[in-house]
Amino acid sequence: MDVGGVMGTIVKNVSIVTGQEEAPFIRHGYFKFADGVIVSVAEGTPSPEEIDRVEVIDGKGKWVMPGMINTHGHLGMSLLRGHSDDLPLQSWLSEKMWPFEGKMDREAVHHARQLAMAEMIKSGTTTFLEMYHLYMDDLAEAVVEQGPRAVLMRSMIGLCSESEQREKLKEAVTFATTWNGDGNGRITTMMAPHAPYTCPPSFIEMIVDEADRIDLPLHTHMAETQREVEEHRKTYGVHPLVHFEQLGFLKDRHWLLAHCVHLGEEELDILEQHPCVHVSHNPMSNLKLGSGIANVQSMLERGINICLGTDSVASNNHLDLVEEMRIAALLQKGAVLDPTAVPAETAIAMATKNGAKALRLPQVGTIEAGKRADFIMIDPQCLHLQPHEHVMSHLVYALKGSDVQDVFVEGAPLMLNKELKTFDEEKLQFEANAHYQRICEKLK
Amino acid sequence: MDVGGVMGTIVKNVSIVTGQEEAPFIRHGYFKFADGVIVSVAEGTPSPEEIDRVEVIDGKGKWVMPGMINTHGHLGMSLLRGHSDDLPLQSWLSEKMWPFEGKMDREAVHHARQLAMAEMIKSGTTTFLEMYHLYMDDLAEAVVEQGPRAVLMRSMIGLCSESEQREKLKEAVTFATTWNGDGNGRITTMMAPHAPYTCPPSFIEMIVDEADRIDLPLHTHMAETQREVEEHRKTYGVHPLVHFEQLGFLKDRHWLLAHCVHLGEEELDILEQHPCVHVSHNPMSNLKLGSGIANVQSMLERGINICLGTDSVASNNHLDLVEEMRIAALLQKGAVLDPTAVPAETAIAMATKNGAKALRLPQVGTIEAGKRADFIMIDPQCLHLQPHEHVMSHLVYALKGSDVQDVFVEGAPLMLNKELKTFDEEKLQFEANAHYQRICEKLK
Repeated sequence: MDVGGVMGTIVKNVSIVTGQEEAPFIRHGYFKFADGVIVSVAEGTPSPEEIDRVEVIDGKGKWVMPGMINTHGHLGMSLLRGHSDDLPLQSWLSEKMWPFEGKMDREAVHHARQLAMAEMIKSGTTTFLEMYHLYMDDLAEAVVEQGPRAVLMRSMIGLCSESEQREKLKEAVTFATTWNGDGNGRITTMMAPHAPYTCPPSFIEMIVDEADRIDLPLHTHMAETQREVEEHRKTYGVHPLVHFEQLGFLKDRHWLLAHCVHLGEEELDILEQHPCVHVSHNPMSNLKLGSGIANVQSMLERGINICLGTDSVASNNHLDLVEEMRIAALLQKGAVLDPTAVPAETAIAMATKNGAKALRLPQVGTIEAGKRADFIMIDPQCLHLQPHEHVMSHLVYALKGSDVQDVFVEGAPLMLNKELKTFDEEKLQFEANAHYQRICEKLK
Repeated sequence: MDVGGVMGTIVKNVSIVTGQEEAPFIRHGYFKFADGVIVSVAEGTPSPEEIDRVEVIDGKGKWVMPGMINTHGHLGMSLLRGHSDDLPLQSWLSEKMWPFEGKMDREAVHHARQLAMAEMIKSGTTTFLEMYHLYMDDLAEAVVEQGPRAVLMRSMIGLCSESEQREKLKEAVTFATTWNGDGNGRITTMMAPHAPYTCPPSFIEMIVDEADRIDLPLHTHMAETQREVEEHRKTYGVHPLVHFEQLGFLKDRHWLLAHCVHLGEEELDILEQHPCVHVSHNPMSNLKLGSGIANVQSMLERGINICLGTDSVASNNHLDLVEEMRIAALLQKGAVLDPTAVPAETAIAMATKNGAKALRLPQVGTIEAGKRADFIMIDPQCLHLQPHEHVMSHLVYALKGSDVQDVFVEGAPLMLNKELKTFDEEKLQFEANAHYQRICEKLK
């Protein structure tokens, strides 16, 4: 950030969770960024020469970590928070989710996403993924204007005629090629067949071919529930992931697979053999929908890259990656009866640099010279973070999303002292309720 | 609360999660309390006559629920937050926990507990249980002075000579009889053999006899880890709970058993047959230590009373019952692959009225005429609670502990607008760090 003759910004007096291999944590240090890029990260205090003609932010003991990366979501559904819980999956979908979504219009989707983006920034997420089928251009415009980093894709369900499939695919390609790299590179795009159970293999093949042609990574839902795996086996004789491999969809292609709850040894082997395939673990959504507990420990042992996602508020019911990070660590320890499973450092990596890798965003995920300045600051002056000695532990096991105080993307402040800079929080609340009530009226 | 000539207090313009069977939720209502007791709860707005000569608190749309009840903890260990994580249980205990505890002195334990009590009030807990062996009188004095409701007990480990056992028992009885009912009834006491694996049957029998004599309920750890159950079987041939039953410890006695992670059908049958035996479920601590996932769904189906506990910050690492309530609900759905397991209402009951029953505190746990005025108020004006229609759902699936704004115990405010009234937050933070560093120095 250049402010009137100043060349860049130094943040001093902070503890830094860098995410770097060599020096993952600096207890007392500072870092400099200019034009949206981190220039240097160091221990100690900057010299008088270093702070000459530079904007200086005194962190006063705050903790800095890379902005978190939410690798699976459907922001357009955010008015559905609490609309329905505690129901069997099929009734939940067919009686509650789909009827509401069927009544949603452009305005409702817009305000749902405004709420979601703001909620994510508030709890320290700087990059999010949106996989949805409605009004994607509106979202891309909002991202350009309001400052977060986003990976966007027009999700495609193929349970329709081939001409309709082609229409959707054309829309997805147009969206992806139009917006990729926009917002000074803050927007990137992917291609997204919705899921193996909603897209016949012929349609996925068309999508994969287009992704190759325009050189984009792919995202899909994979093995979220036992039932979808069983039905795939009934129809095709194999697990959907095995099917993907047999059909040649995985080879040398960058895939991000959301959920991966129900994988056996054969499927884990496939992931291990395909380092271009990444997993978005969504522990709280998987629990809430009764889908199950993904075998994260086995994936880690095989060197599979795992990152974190919230899924939508309809099945979570929040977009707070701090909790997702905590539950990813706790849940695995309890599931495999091993307190050493998913240690704090691993959980932090899953919420940051693993996500960057999974979204093909080498420019973010760590606090490191040359990376874009996407970072968050946490004020440890609260009771539940005392004694405040153990920063890495507290970030995973004790932090609340509400402890995040400042959020920067490309060096630009999106939140300072818990106040959003590019969203009007009061208006967001009003609009979310107004549009939720309006759609509920339409349902009557 | 009587304020200069006024007769009681009315809280109006609030949504009320009453916890009552008949009317569990009032969307827009008010309630009155006087002399620490709830006088009336009603829908709508109070009439001019009702608010005459009464202090009126305008809730302005806040949500009211019964104060939460933390039914298992060791506040004295609160300086140990983040001191050690991600280690095998035995190294964690013998290399990290016990050496630190061995160096703790009266001052350190006092400040640990001050931190813990304040942290619990901040996140909406009005009643806590303390099971610990050090400086219990100090804690009782602090509770009398600083206002929360507490169930206190001098925990006893019996791996020592019989004369030492008798000494501990005498101390526990003296503490329990001295303080029971103090603080205008805010303090009650229990008798607490630490665990079947640390107390030989002969010692537990002595404790049980004393509990009968002074008419107090009992608390112990039960079947927290697979290993302790296996070792009990090796020594005594049976599961520790079966052993308790065979020895006649359970019959017609009020027990609260912490954890109960490793129970089979036989042990669940025993719980079902003993309605005086209650279970304190500590999901996050059980996950973090790699102990496992308690079979809560089976317990609920059998009508066993289950409440919630955090355990200590050494194994959690926070004292926030909001998260415990959420994880209790989510974890069970995921563990039994059923999204209908532990619905929101059940999770709220576990955090409130089930806890009251388990601690033999019929005077709290619901917002209801005749109960003590222990309640909390939540401001829904935050992004992660929008749309704000679905109050019960949001309390379990979206709330953060930091959303709690006001906390009352016996009608006295312990927190107003997020500001603690009987603790100095800045001093607590300073002391916690100073004493943590001091004990660490002693360890060197």
